[in-house]
Amino acid sequence: MKSVRASAPATVANVSCGFDIFGFAVASPADEVVVTLTDKPGVVIREIVGDDGRLPLDASRNTSGVAVIEFLKAIKSEQGAEITLYKHLALGSGMGSSAASSVAALVAINHLHGEPLSRKELLPFAMESERIACGSAHADNVAPSLLGGFVLIRGYDPLDVTSIPTPAGLFCTLVHPHLELKTEDSRRVLKATIPIKDAITQWGNIAGLVVGLMKPDFGLIGRSLKDVVAEPIRSVLIPGFDRIKEEAVKAGALGCGISGSGPTIFALSTDAATAQRVGEAMQAQFTDLKLKSDVFVSEINNAGAKIL
Amino acid sequence: MKSVRASAPATVANVSCGFDIFGFAVASPADEVVVTLTDKPGVVIREIVGDDGRLPLDASRNTSGVAVIEFLKAIKSEQGAEITLYKHLALGSGMGSSAASSVAALVAINHLHGEPLSRKELLPFAMESERIACGSAHADNVAPSLLGGFVLIRGYDPLDVTSIPTPAGLFCTLVHPHLELKTEDSRRVLKATIPIKDAITQWGNIAGLVVGLMKPDFGLIGRSLKDVVAEPIRSVLIPGFDRIKEEAVKAGALGCGISGSGPTIFALSTDAATAQRVGEAMQAQFTDLKLKSDVFVSEINNAGAKIL
Repeated sequence: MKSVRASAPATVANVSCGFDIFGFAVASPADEVVVTLTDKPGVVIREIVGDDGRLPLDASRNTSGVAVIEFLKAIKSEQGAEITLYKHLALGSGMGSSAASSVAALVAINHLHGEPLSRKELLPFAMESERIACGSAHADNVAPSLLGGFVLIRGYDPLDVTSIPTPAGLFCTLVHPHLELKTEDSRRVLKATIPIKDAITQWGNIAGLVVGLMKPDFGLIGRSLKDVVAEPIRSVLIPGFDRIKEEAVKAGALGCGISGSGPTIFALSTDAATAQRVGEAMQAQFTDLKLKSDVFVSEINNAGAKIL
Repeated sequence: MKSVRASAPATVANVSCGFDIFGFAVASPADEVVVTLTDKPGVVIREIVGDDGRLPLDASRNTSGVAVIEFLKAIKSEQGAEITLYKHLALGSGMGSSAASSVAALVAINHLHGEPLSRKELLPFAMESERIACGSAHADNVAPSLLGGFVLIRGYDPLDVTSIPTPAGLFCTLVHPHLELKTEDSRRVLKATIPIKDAITQWGNIAGLVVGLMKPDFGLIGRSLKDVVAEPIRSVLIPGFDRIKEEAVKAGALGCGISGSGPTIFALSTDAATAQRVGEAMQAQFTDLKLKSDVFVSEINNAGAKIL
């Protein structure tokens, strides 16, 4: 039967000031899948490599499985699929692990069926699998993983997704400490209301970030990478956060913040060497706290998920 | 003595979703001043035309006077100035009336002194006169009146002001009902905290508006021109608001909202004829409510204040 291998990248949701509406894709790490068409209906997860047996093999409870089930339903296919999932993204890391798996599977199954749907049309299926993974059908990881680059989710009713041009030479450092935070838990610590003063600061910054990216104006990007809403609350869950952020900026980063709901921390820099140095400075802080961590340095990934 | 005439345009602050951080300038109406250098120190308001005697002639209590006083102090001038102010903007209209007077005076006095300061450097003086006029040194009217076009005030500490490219062919309709709202009163009705859900909607929209302007993407501009924070509260002070907004969009406007703190209502359209038609539709609603109103239609003013 026809078979294809696809990969979908890690993503940074929120990007400090863009809580719940903004995200971007990096080049690595990325999840991979091999999807094979089957003659009989039904979706089977054949194997998951790299999750230490923690993810469900039941397709209806696995994000890659749910995405493919929803896709096949939508195109009224009578065929089924088998999925092998190679997890390279750590679970509960804040790098969009669940999103990467479902997006890779979607891009693969769409390819096997001759690309009946555009990347944007695949979004609702990926969002549906986010609902399975973390309780709400948010798009700030799946959209950049599918579309690449920086993506704005203006609103959900109806879904309004826009790609934002990425300035050349923007590099991301991800430092993932070996801790695990569940998005649900991390959302629970947020407050239901916020001071209007903070809200105004936040929307000044997200507007500044978008203008900075589009002009481009790296200084403005740096000044805008501030989060007065989620970070002050969530950063308490990440040991050494304030110090790490300080060290990242001291090492030359434009700015630094929590990737998604954490504990991974991201930083943006204007060249690869700085991004590497920033990663070392950040990791050194975790090492001081006796926390192991992984560092990933890559350019912003403008292509998103791809067929391998 | 040396004398010069200058004008500064009306402005739309907030622009629906950009509460307190965003504004743009229109071509008309505009305030005018004639400023004359004097040999002895001190600033004198010689005459104000068009205010029905309502604005203070005491320079230290008049926005144009305060701006010039602050400017002369900053450049350590030993000369003084006489100001004649031609008010074309209605007071308490939500079109940046106080800002236009101070900006016109500043541009004039800066010109008379050989332009020692850039437009951006004039901003703090204009902001100081906003403090006199409405109790807080906000920049969302003075910045676009000085700089022209759309202006983002990312933050105040320190002041961070960025001009945003205006797409060609964007027209503004202003409809000013003969009512008066004081910015202070209009601010007082706002709540000190807002639901985080509304805050997220608002920053999705301001990001969308900025992306829409810069791409440009007129559909996205229209979808983003929504205010879930100030408009639902402030619009109650403007008779017929919801209906007027509906009629504006029905007549072809991209979107419509309160200009500054009101009661003037603005709409954006993609050509002059539509902007005119939108104005007529909006005015007809006020007329139905037995309210007189003025309609102003003009292209976005990218130049801002000017020497005449």
